[in-house]
Amino acid sequence: MTTPVEREGSVLVTDVQLAAFSLAPGFQSAATACGLKKSGALDLAMVWTDTPCAAAGVFTTNRVQAAPVLYDREVLATGGGWVRGVIANAGCANAVTGARGRADAEAMAAHAAASIGVGAAEMLVLSTGVIGVFLDMEKLDRGIGALHSEEGHAAAADAARAITTTDTRPKVATAEVALRGGTVHIAGFAKGAGMIHPHMATMLAVLTTDARIAPPRLERALQAATERSFNRISVDGDMSTNDTVLVLASGVGTLVDAAGEAAFTAALADACTSLAKQIARDGEGATRLVELRITGAASEEQAHRVGDTIATSSLVKTAIHGKDPNWGRILAAAGRSGEAIDPDRVRLWFGDGDAVQLLADGMPLPFDRARASALLGDDPVAIHVELGLGDAEAMLWTCDLSADYVRINADYTT
Amino acid sequence: MTTPVEREGSVLVTDVQLAAFSLAPGFQSAATACGLKKSGALDLAMVWTDTPCAAAGVFTTNRVQAAPVLYDREVLATGGGWVRGVIANAGCANAVTGARGRADAEAMAAHAAASIGVGAAEMLVLSTGVIGVFLDMEKLDRGIGALHSEEGHAAAADAARAITTTDTRPKVATAEVALRGGTVHIAGFAKGAGMIHPHMATMLAVLTTDARIAPPRLERALQAATERSFNRISVDGDMSTNDTVLVLASGVGTLVDAAGEAAFTAALADACTSLAKQIARDGEGATRLVELRITGAASEEQAHRVGDTIATSSLVKTAIHGKDPNWGRILAAAGRSGEAIDPDRVRLWFGDGDAVQLLADGMPLPFDRARASALLGDDPVAIHVELGLGDAEAMLWTCDLSADYVRINADYTT
Repeated sequence: MTTPVEREGSVLVTDVQLAAFSLAPGFQSAATACGLKKSGALDLAMVWTDTPCAAAGVFTTNRVQAAPVLYDREVLATGGGWVRGVIANAGCANAVTGARGRADAEAMAAHAAASIGVGAAEMLVLSTGVIGVFLDMEKLDRGIGALHSEEGHAAAADAARAITTTDTRPKVATAEVALRGGTVHIAGFAKGAGMIHPHMATMLAVLTTDARIAPPRLERALQAATERSFNRISVDGDMSTNDTVLVLASGVGTLVDAAGEAAFTAALADACTSLAKQIARDGEGATRLVELRITGAASEEQAHRVGDTIATSSLVKTAIHGKDPNWGRILAAAGRSGEAIDPDRVRLWFGDGDAVQLLADGMPLPFDRARASALLGDDPVAIHVELGLGDAEAMLWTCDLSADYVRINADYTT
Repeated sequence: MTTPVEREGSVLVTDVQLAAFSLAPGFQSAATACGLKKSGALDLAMVWTDTPCAAAGVFTTNRVQAAPVLYDREVLATGGGWVRGVIANAGCANAVTGARGRADAEAMAAHAAASIGVGAAEMLVLSTGVIGVFLDMEKLDRGIGALHSEEGHAAAADAARAITTTDTRPKVATAEVALRGGTVHIAGFAKGAGMIHPHMATMLAVLTTDARIAPPRLERALQAATERSFNRISVDGDMSTNDTVLVLASGVGTLVDAAGEAAFTAALADACTSLAKQIARDGEGATRLVELRITGAASEEQAHRVGDTIATSSLVKTAIHGKDPNWGRILAAAGRSGEAIDPDRVRLWFGDGDAVQLLADGMPLPFDRARASALLGDDPVAIHVELGLGDAEAMLWTCDLSADYVRINADYTT
């Protein structure tokens, strides 16, 4: 039914896949380098439609919300979920910038909107980068002008490149679903490598679709798709001030009505899951994706919470990095989740298909250390915790924690 | 009033201070190397009294509790808070070891108790080290015998050495308080460098005092002393399965009655705070202590929670390590604490006495980057967050996060 872009052996996309990437029918994009990134790399992108498109967003639940997050919430609330596009920059988060930051976000939207002849209230804004620094509006204005000149890069992959920060690869994904009236196409891109934690949308992502779909239905689909994808990944447990996932529907394609909603939501979830796994795999300093499966929980929420403390444990993540089968750290992390697990019922395996069992009903088992260590060297690493309490389960994704994480983060702004 | 052991310029103790360290009057100790540590270093210690001593403990709130934690809770509950001592080992945590582990903890207590001619129910047990591994009872039994032979080390500092794992220094502290009836002495030691998080006692600590004090009063004093010391430190956010703080009162000295309880509690808190700061400073891979002061909170609990998310943020801790004044990460961490902070009221300073202000009522201030960076190189590093919501405050201690943390933890058991 769906075809997410995935590379054999790694969830990160190849150059060939990037070159073939395009947005859903009805969307145009442009990208440029306006100087917000010191490196001179692409740092400004815009995605837009020729006619109003339905839009929905999920945003960070951090109490400290960046100016573009506050702005987008207002645009979606007052406009009924109809917009014309989104302007996005990397290199400056426009967060913790007070009233001036809020004015800057609005001006950024207004200038971008004017560049395609629409109103400021029809343009969404995304920003990512350093917190506590004001946007350089002069560079930004020049950049918005350049988007539509010969300096503008029209390839969708360049928009994906422009929003990256410490990412080593752009993240793109596509999915499609055949409904009664025809095929719906979904194509999205995302960024995120640090300050990633599963609680609401936890990075920037823009999904486009040609579906003809009403904003409330699109919103429901996005909420559901986000819950089991972006809300299930962690790099470092730090929730950003700017996390945003947007979905824009151009409406040039097939109608998604009540009968098609479930299938559309599943396809959207596939694209979101692919992007989420790419983000976790590309975590700062990461060398491997970790797939964590929690089963036997009393509820899906319990499975998620137990998995979350494991996925965010520095001790678990460093042990995986060192291929050290020090599995007791997984149990210690599960035990501090706040959930009423029973240590004497827990079972634990490493590897796909439960290759090596380490714990049976709370009792350690003798195991082949070399084999267990080798399984922790796989990409992805598979870990399965069975709680023995019920039938609910959850999948989560994280990455190993390497010394490079520290190096990357010890001098981000200096 | 009190004299915690602190080295000029660092909270870690010197060799001279270690050599001068002794337990409170009424206590004896012994330490030996029984082979649980592969290195051959001291790994078994016992502290005891000649007559029953009052005892109190606080324990990990992790749902996965090690066998010695379960055993000690029972001993204190059934014995009314009267014991004769504690036996402690490093090198094996006896955690996630099921029924066999619980039997081993009891046997360990029984053997240690027999070595001084008392009953098993009068001996507490502490274990620290790798999780999911059974105790080597043969080595342990030989070790308990050796404690009382010429192989036994009687210096109190050796007991402190014996319980360390990845600690670079033993942790010891003393305090005294003059009451109406005379002076009360407090002397304690602790261990802990990883799996440290402020939620209940978060490492092993044994405090001794010559006070004559009833178990319920001792318990109250310990609870209060722990709340603002051991519960205020974090190295990596990982709560251990074995965390225990014990206080033993030999009763050979001054009476602590209702009139003296507050002063005794304050002295106990001083000793606990000194040990807690030593643990945070000696965090795995740490190069500096971080003192985090949260003021202007609506409640002390709010101040503690906001401080906790900052103190456990990998992004904040790596920035401090790199002396990178990327202060936005502090705000982002505060914002995801779950507390209803108002970003537009927050003020932020680096340095003792609020040396450099970075944020005023939610607006970034221009600041001297070189000076801010230098302040992050101090030991301790002082950070002050004013929330502007009320009068409550909290002090917390953490450490910087270095690439050595990853190296230490990537191959702990291999």
